[in-house]
Amino acid sequence: MDKTTAGGLAGVWGLVALAIVLGGAGFGAYIDIPSVIIVFGGTAAVTMASFEGDTMKNFGKSIGVGMNEVKVEPIPDLIEKLIIYATDIKKNGVMSVESKIQQETNPFFKEAMNLLVDNTKPDVLENLLEIKLEHMEIRHKTQISVFGSIGGSAGAMGMIGTLVGLVAMLANLSDPSAVGPAMAVALLTTMYGALIGTGFAGVFESKLEQKHAKEMIASQIIIQGAHMIAAEESIGNIKMKLGAIMQSTEE
Amino acid sequence: MDKTTAGGLAGVWGLVALAIVLGGAGFGAYIDIPSVIIVFGGTAAVTMASFEGDTMKNFGKSIGVGMNEVKVEPIPDLIEKLIIYATDIKKNGVMSVESKIQQETNPFFKEAMNLLVDNTKPDVLENLLEIKLEHMEIRHKTQISVFGSIGGSAGAMGMIGTLVGLVAMLANLSDPSAVGPAMAVALLTTMYGALIGTGFAGVFESKLEQKHAKEMIASQIIIQGAHMIAAEESIGNIKMKLGAIMQSTEE
Amino acid sequence: MDKTTAGGLAGVWGLVALAIVLGGAGFGAYIDIPSVIIVFGGTAAVTMASFEGDTMKNFGKSIGVGMNEVKVEPIPDLIEKLIIYATDIKKNGVMSVESKIQQETNPFFKEAMNLLVDNTKPDVLENLLEIKLEHMEIRHKTQISVFGSIGGSAGAMGMIGTLVGLVAMLANLSDPSAVGPAMAVALLTTMYGALIGTGFAGVFESKLEQKHAKEMIASQIIIQGAHMIAAEESIGNIKMKLGAIMQSTEE
Amino acid sequence: MDKTTAGGLAGVWGLVALAIVLGGAGFGAYIDIPSVIIVFGGTAAVTMASFEGDTMKNFGKSIGVGMNEVKVEPIPDLIEKLIIYATDIKKNGVMSVESKIQQETNPFFKEAMNLLVDNTKPDVLENLLEIKLEHMEIRHKTQISVFGSIGGSAGAMGMIGTLVGLVAMLANLSDPSAVGPAMAVALLTTMYGALIGTGFAGVFESKLEQKHAKEMIASQIIIQGAHMIAAEESIGNIKMKLGAIMQSTEE
Amino acid sequence: MDKTTAGGLAGVWGLVALAIVLGGAGFGAYIDIPSVIIVFGGTAAVTMASFEGDTMKNFGKSIGVGMNEVKVEPIPDLIEKLIIYATDIKKNGVMSVESKIQQETNPFFKEAMNLLVDNTKPDVLENLLEIKLEHMEIRHKTQISVFGSIGGSAGAMGMIGTLVGLVAMLANLSDPSAVGPAMAVALLTTMYGALIGTGFAGVFESKLEQKHAKEMIASQIIIQGAHMIAAEESIGNIKMKLGAIMQSTEE
Repeated sequence: MDKTTAGGLAGVWGLVALAIVLGGAGFGAYIDIPSVIIVFGGTAAVTMASFEGDTMKNFGKSIGVGMNEVKVEPIPDLIEKLIIYATDIKKNGVMSVESKIQQETNPFFKEAMNLLVDNTKPDVLENLLEIKLEHMEIRHKTQISVFGSIGGSAGAMGMIGTLVGLVAMLANLSDPSAVGPAMAVALLTTMYGALIGTGFAGVFESKLEQKHAKEMIASQIIIQGAHMIAAEESIGNIKMKLGAIMQSTEE
Repeated sequence: MDKTTAGGLAGVWGLVALAIVLGGAGFGAYIDIPSVIIVFGGTAAVTMASFEGDTMKNFGKSIGVGMNEVKVEPIPDLIEKLIIYATDIKKNGVMSVESKIQQETNPFFKEAMNLLVDNTKPDVLENLLEIKLEHMEIRHKTQISVFGSIGGSAGAMGMIGTLVGLVAMLANLSDPSAVGPAMAVALLTTMYGALIGTGFAGVFESKLEQKHAKEMIASQIIIQGAHMIAAEESIGNIKMKLGAIMQSTEE
Repeated sequence: MDKTTAGGLAGVWGLVALAIVLGGAGFGAYIDIPSVIIVFGGTAAVTMASFEGDTMKNFGKSIGVGMNEVKVEPIPDLIEKLIIYATDIKKNGVMSVESKIQQETNPFFKEAMNLLVDNTKPDVLENLLEIKLEHMEIRHKTQISVFGSIGGSAGAMGMIGTLVGLVAMLANLSDPSAVGPAMAVALLTTMYGALIGTGFAGVFESKLEQKHAKEMIASQIIIQGAHMIAAEESIGNIKMKLGAIMQSTEE
Repeated sequence: MDKTTAGGLAGVWGLVALAIVLGGAGFGAYIDIPSVIIVFGGTAAVTMASFEGDTMKNFGKSIGVGMNEVKVEPIPDLIEKLIIYATDIKKNGVMSVESKIQQETNPFFKEAMNLLVDNTKPDVLENLLEIKLEHMEIRHKTQISVFGSIGGSAGAMGMIGTLVGLVAMLANLSDPSAVGPAMAVALLTTMYGALIGTGFAGVFESKLEQKHAKEMIASQIIIQGAHMIAAEESIGNIKMKLGAIMQSTEE
Repeated sequence: MDKTTAGGLAGVWGLVALAIVLGGAGFGAYIDIPSVIIVFGGTAAVTMASFEGDTMKNFGKSIGVGMNEVKVEPIPDLIEKLIIYATDIKKNGVMSVESKIQQETNPFFKEAMNLLVDNTKPDVLENLLEIKLEHMEIRHKTQISVFGSIGGSAGAMGMIGTLVGLVAMLANLSDPSAVGPAMAVALLTTMYGALIGTGFAGVFESKLEQKHAKEMIASQIIIQGAHMIAAEESIGNIKMKLGAIMQSTEE
């Protein structure tokens, strides 16, 4: 569980609920089934129509990534691990790490080490891992853009719902006492749209971008490390190069 | 038929219709012929004036692409097919695949294979296919930008229509009972503009971008594959390189 | 005359006029001299202040480019012409096309052919034409950005005009019957600003970008063709390379 | 004095003044000291806090650049001058132009010519001038961004001022006759913000960008010319290359 | 203490307070605990949910960087120092500066000089420092983006708060005299959101970007200088190259 995502989301929705309670009109005034249908249903429909089926299938997985800790370890730990692998391979040959690799959880790290075990040439190894990384990036960006699209659609559907409500109210002004409540209901769709955009879509879009950026940096470090090991560079060199990265994340 | 496009669009418009029914003012309150004319006609006129004639001629084709399944197969199937072709050519020579190529439906794949049959040199083949891809991309981007333009124009024409209606209403405030209905009508153009933008232009813009991105990735894989076949690389190498792409689309 | 520009613009303004007529308040309600002055005059003044004198001098020329057919022929015709020139030069020497070149209307094509006649080396020819193209692009972009600036300024001046009107109205609320008409007049500037932005500036910005993009593609094809002719490549090669471009514009 | 800047600014502010006079509420209705303080003072404070001290120190200089003619001559004159220098140096040696250089007013041109006199090698000369140009660009962009920031801050402070005024008015609704004038005053800050953004910040942002673009093009031509002179290219070559640029600015 | 940040922020908030005092409704009208909770709390919650834990941990440090003078010296001083180091090393060998380096405060300068002392090869030194710089940039950009996110979230939470308040007010229109104060309170959240965005988030976002840009330029000059020293270029060359940068920051 990613504590900042869970805690932050609980905070946003809790505070909105608190503001409603303190406002004194009661929760009932903020719930209107037709408004829920047009904003939540409409946003879902627009999003479904805007993306391909396989992108939609991975939507639940994206939510999971946003709610859970990213699978990559901190950069300093990753660098330390790379240096340990480099030292082991230097001393005992590449076969000595084969069984250890199978216990790694980061699939990109595992793939890089397996290529080392297969004695892949440094340039081929680098090329293969970069192709993988590039395609991973394209896929991640598409999944992240779903949340940007949801935020925009929710705002637009909220505005459309408010216009539908305003037109209905204005077309029948015979009972002045009904104007207030009717406008209140009309505004609910705008509020729902803003809440979806701010308290869901925006949060996941940003959080997934952060996690993606972290994974990209880690993967690039893995590529550099694996390349240096494959090129049989000295442990000193590997330490110096990866050390420069580590220091700069601490300053 | 692309089920997500069709289903999503049906959902958006169905839900808006449902919200109107639940709003209780009746469909009649939401239909106003002059408002339809200024928003739909005005958006069409602005779009026509903003693009060249040949871009406009392909507009119907763009709608078709958005509503139908993209013609490229999934990446893993495409890669498998490339490996089969590579193996066939390695074993039985390039002539053995000539008749099979004529049954392919993806024109870019067909062109790439035909160049192989013509014994085009690897670099010339790559260069030709990249020129084709580049020009295809320019053309696609232009067609996609039509939808972005429609979304913007519809919003602007909706606002202009509302201003035209408000001025008419405010200039004649003699009958207060007419204010409500007049404002309701004035707001309709804004609503139409938002509906065109959200439930049509935005959906097709995004969907076409998704399909274009898919086609670009597939085409680049075809270029890589055809280049490796032309360069007579080993089947093992081809499998490894294309395999790195395939894995990354599944993780 | 570019039929889509002329027809589209006539459509937009005709439809707005129609909406005004159908609105029933009469044209008089939509014309207010001080509002015209602040929006049209103000937009002109801001635009003048925002650009250099020589950019302003070419403004009329930009309008002309937007209203007329672009001077470049369709890509397939251009490619065919290049192949004819290449064949002529191959058969009868470069001097044989000298008189034909003088009848060409596209100045970039003419310049490229003249460089061929002067026996310019392939790389020098390519370099010179690319410098020309780059500077042409910078100049076009500046001229196009004038229309983007006009759209933004018109919207801003419209809003300022509305605020000026609202303040005047609110400061003198003594006669309630004057409130409606005064607000109607105040809204006119916003409407004028939106009309300038949507029915003039936006249209020309987009249309000029489309024509510029077409001219860039044609010019790049001319550079490629002229370079291949200067490098004395075989007619077969030239046909294949330019053919790849032509096909991709038809698919 | 740059006539378009001066004339355009005079036009904008004059037309707003005219609109106020024609509106009939008198200038007094548009001046409110607290509103002036919060918008003008607030914008200045936000801008000061957002930039570094040395950027702020150059603010007056930026205004001067926007109000005055740019110091670079038109491209055709510049090219002609470069060709004259090239011819002089070819004929009489580099020392012959030394005294003439001291009378040049464009510092970048002067620096380039001084490097020629010092017999700097072509590549070193190009490299040095490009470093200079790059740092000049960074500095210019920072100074230009100050105006973009002012436009945004003025709009935001205008909105904050209006909200402060609306809250004050709404909290004390006891006297209905005061509502109109109070709202008029509240709207003034929004109007001030829009005026600063449109009639000052936006104008200078655009004008400085135009002048910067002109200076960049001129400087790049100077680098190309000086490099060709240093590389002792033939006058014919220099003329042809610089001529290609000149033609493209006239078409 | 960075005087422009501190002075500017004091100015903004002081002027808003002054405007409130001059508005006459008293400070009490502008403070509403539920509004404070939903905007400040909600913005904090959204920001926390949008970023990773380690980014959040460095938030206080970012505030400190914005409030204090940047640790890099002015470019001319830095260049002078580099030339002094270069001269010392040329004359007395690299060991002669070892103790002086330990007194430097800019960690990037220190690192560069330490690599010189370790006799690192020019290209390795350049490569290592560029890796460091690249990772420093990624980290800085992430930290800066937190403020952009805060500005957006504050505006959105302000709007949500106003909608919550409006719905509560409109649902209970029985007491007309309560409408004004209720709307006043509803608008407070929008005002709080705008104040956080303009008078805090926007200021720090811009100021940190300015300081980051300054540090990047200084670091790139350090890399260039250290590389030239390591490559044992002549003092004359080093002076000329770094001098070109210095001049361009003064023009």
